[in-house]
Amino acid sequence: MGVIQTSPFAPEVIAPAPAIDGVELAIGRAGFYKTDRPDLVLFRLAASTKAAGIFTTNRVGSSPTDHSLAALAASRGTARGLLVNAGCANAFTGDAGDQACRISTAAAAAAMGVPAEAVLAASTGVIGVLLDSGKILAVVPEIARRLAPGQWTDAARAIMTTDTFPKIASARAAIDGKSVNIVGIAKGSGMIAPDLATMLAFIFTDANISASALGTMLRAGAEDSFNSVTVDGDCSTNDCALLFATGKAGHRAIARASDPRATGFRHALNAVMEELAVALVKDGEGARKFVTIRIAGAQSDRAAKKFARTIAESPLVKTAIAGEDANWGRIVMALGRTGYAISRHRIAIRFGDLWAARNGAISPDYDEAAMSAYMKRPELEIGIEVGDGPGQARMRTCDLTRAYVEINGDYRS
Amino acid sequence: MGVIQTSPFAPEVIAPAPAIDGVELAIGRAGFYKTDRPDLVLFRLAASTKAAGIFTTNRVGSSPTDHSLAALAASRGTARGLLVNAGCANAFTGDAGDQACRISTAAAAAAMGVPAEAVLAASTGVIGVLLDSGKILAVVPEIARRLAPGQWTDAARAIMTTDTFPKIASARAAIDGKSVNIVGIAKGSGMIAPDLATMLAFIFTDANISASALGTMLRAGAEDSFNSVTVDGDCSTNDCALLFATGKAGHRAIARASDPRATGFRHALNAVMEELAVALVKDGEGARKFVTIRIAGAQSDRAAKKFARTIAESPLVKTAIAGEDANWGRIVMALGRTGYAISRHRIAIRFGDLWAARNGAISPDYDEAAMSAYMKRPELEIGIEVGDGPGQARMRTCDLTRAYVEINGDYRS
Repeated sequence: MGVIQTSPFAPEVIAPAPAIDGVELAIGRAGFYKTDRPDLVLFRLAASTKAAGIFTTNRVGSSPTDHSLAALAASRGTARGLLVNAGCANAFTGDAGDQACRISTAAAAAAMGVPAEAVLAASTGVIGVLLDSGKILAVVPEIARRLAPGQWTDAARAIMTTDTFPKIASARAAIDGKSVNIVGIAKGSGMIAPDLATMLAFIFTDANISASALGTMLRAGAEDSFNSVTVDGDCSTNDCALLFATGKAGHRAIARASDPRATGFRHALNAVMEELAVALVKDGEGARKFVTIRIAGAQSDRAAKKFARTIAESPLVKTAIAGEDANWGRIVMALGRTGYAISRHRIAIRFGDLWAARNGAISPDYDEAAMSAYMKRPELEIGIEVGDGPGQARMRTCDLTRAYVEINGDYRS
Repeated sequence: MGVIQTSPFAPEVIAPAPAIDGVELAIGRAGFYKTDRPDLVLFRLAASTKAAGIFTTNRVGSSPTDHSLAALAASRGTARGLLVNAGCANAFTGDAGDQACRISTAAAAAAMGVPAEAVLAASTGVIGVLLDSGKILAVVPEIARRLAPGQWTDAARAIMTTDTFPKIASARAAIDGKSVNIVGIAKGSGMIAPDLATMLAFIFTDANISASALGTMLRAGAEDSFNSVTVDGDCSTNDCALLFATGKAGHRAIARASDPRATGFRHALNAVMEELAVALVKDGEGARKFVTIRIAGAQSDRAAKKFARTIAESPLVKTAIAGEDANWGRIVMALGRTGYAISRHRIAIRFGDLWAARNGAISPDYDEAAMSAYMKRPELEIGIEVGDGPGQARMRTCDLTRAYVEINGDYRS
């Protein structure tokens, strides 16, 4: 197999993120990889912590997503810890997988001195391989002794699979004049041996917010961030985004997401989710181009999102972008195959500010040389105006390159 | 750009197909390609000919599909001719495209001595480029002088874009003791400069069958042939399959598809459609593996087809197959992301006769060495048993290789 090249979008410096009061973490190695790399992260959360999560829509799911979903429901949105491993997804592993997850979180809980049922789990790696809980049990007591605030970069690195850079975002807001911090880490589409494109995101804040408000904020923010990016359209069994609020910032509690005191916080939270989502796409397998697709004028937002996603996931569109080809004919094709009606005589398509098509045909001012120059940029915007209504959507994606095929075509070894 | 390699599935010899009484054809060059290759085919059909067609579900469509659909409706299923060009799809070309199609078919009709409204059209090539009807008008009179029976291989070659071999299938049946012949030609997923994966199929028979029965037979046969294959999930604006019956075989007319006298004919027709559909996949862009996916035990046939198609179009599954990797974890992922409920504890997956998973986990008799040897074969079968009901489906697909990315990533030149 070829060496996986670092994404051209990898930041030169990973900006440090502040510690979150009430969150301690520790990084270690359970040995799910043959190479000497960290693959386990423990998070210990203050007793006041509220939590919410969103989980994969994949109907097969996985033991860790089942576990976290059940734990959040049973505790009505509280959590004292989180155990994350890379290198094994523990998905499609039957009852033995469920048991391995329970044993591992119980051991992590014991090592951290918190109740067993209060520790959530997240796993990423090869599907169908049973989590070896013995590897986790052997190391969690030692790892838990090193729990400390901060260390976000090390944690973000430990959960990477074929990600080529760690993904961290942070923001600050004020609630009732009190400063609150938000830090998120994520891992994106990657394979290791190879596995599946699995998105995990963990966001922490010291704000004092109810679990139901956290859930509302997380779901609302995800719509334009994690749910508006696609690398290859394949949806993992293990995807999850978890949001934890320790309540240590000292302001009076926010009970509802609609509370106007939380407006600044929500903007900051959305910015963190947006930054992580963009990083996921920029580090998509084999990605060399980052593409924003904007739809306007669809009959509804739902139709607009379907148009955007179909374009973003079309292999013919994605390979054209890899070839720096402004192939608007393929975009037209993708628009037509969604099942939604479309008035072809009104379709207009632009690349950046350059119009390729207007009124259902090639644009009179189409300029091949200018278009060709634009397509060489690493970040592209494709705008489509449909002309059927007020619906709009934005979707981010990357190109489909030979590197994607190489990364994913290697034999599991 | 690299030279496009011939599919490893290309037949060594193209078997000759018989002439169909009532069908004459002529091949020529209008000049839609820079290279000296044929790109135009005229078909003249006997006055007794009945016809039926199925057309792309792409909502954008194209001028030639609109034209043929309207012509078949207006004539209640008769046709006297067909004009096919490669090198320009004449899709998304507005009113000018519709007019170019009308002018071209009228010129072809005049040259062949048949009514203008009785000539259907089909085009394949770059989307968004207006058909230059002048190029067609300049050559059809001369081409029409060469109309003659047979010549299937030349016709199949003339409609190729990046197809690497011509696709022809023929079969014989008897109706009322009279021998009837069926010949079909098709072109598959190809690009030239590059364009879109466009499927065209034209099937001719000398049987005497009503237009409505032809339509029923065509739609029924397409379900398990053209509608059960996928290369990349992208659906062209120009796809169509047309079935013509000249009625020259001399038997009493078949009025309804359910007529038991047509049973043998229907089997033969289905065999022709099946053979063409398989050839389309085997010559899919960059294809090196031909894969049959069989689903059993789904809650319905509809669910089964959705499972099969999602697996067949998953980039992660397709790249794994290219890498000769029996990555059943990715198949599980694809099963889970269709939106249909699935009982993960009952899923079983086999590659050929080798079980990878049973009862929702890795199979106890999983044999990596045997699996690895199986995956090196050019033709593979993946069987999935879901365990939720009687639903079943079969889908054929190919792998996703670097060659696909190379073929489709080249700049339109």
